[in-house]
Amino acid sequence: MKRYGSVIKIKTKKLEEYKKIHANIWPEVAKMITECNIINYSIFHKDGYLFSYFEYIGKNYESDMAKMAADSTTQEWWDVCMPMQEPLDTRKKGEWWAEMEEVFHQD
Amino acid sequence: MKRYGSVIKIKTKKLEEYKKIHANIWPEVAKMITECNIINYSIFHKDGYLFSYFEYIGKNYESDMAKMAADSTTQEWWDVCMPMQEPLDTRKKGEWWAEMEEVFHQD
Repeated sequence: MKRYGSVIKIKTKKLEEYKKIHANIWPEVAKMITECNIINYSIFHKDGYLFSYFEYIGKNYESDMAKMAADSTTQEWWDVCMPMQEPLDTRKKGEWWAEMEEVFHQD
Repeated sequence: MKRYGSVIKIKTKKLEEYKKIHANIWPEVAKMITECNIINYSIFHKDGYLFSYFEYIGKNYESDMAKMAADSTTQEWWDVCMPMQEPLDTRKKGEWWAEMEEVFHQD
């Protein structure tokens, strides 16, 4: 299992809408997350920053992420979510949410 | 079980030292974290922001946090860590790390 922490900004005016749609995520999107071996997935907000935490239990992260990105319902979901977000300028090439570095862990 | 997400800033010049000491956290501090019913505790870094995620499995969070704060070794540890950190101006009264709001979760 590998833990992933990522960060992105949310447009202030879009925060309530973002929270609302995430309180009722589309079932197909939720199902695809599970099928792509992501568990214990949380998103937190403070001061315009969104932080996501999840655990990856599959064997090939890149392959599972490609599978998710190829799913048409997930694409539609992202088309709704992405305009609400503002990615960090410092994100790596190919990233939307910027991956963070794990600096501590205790089970 | 309740999940907690929190955020604080780290002074740029102190990041390497912070990572170093967290790679070898004092055993007494680690033990106290466990005794205070905190599990699956991670800290991530990006662009001067530290994000922490943990799960609380006890019955009285405030009581367990008070227990941790009363532990002399934990106090010494905090004396080392806190000068490296810069709390958010928007944190609530009594907070050091600012608690975030959970806006999404999927098991």
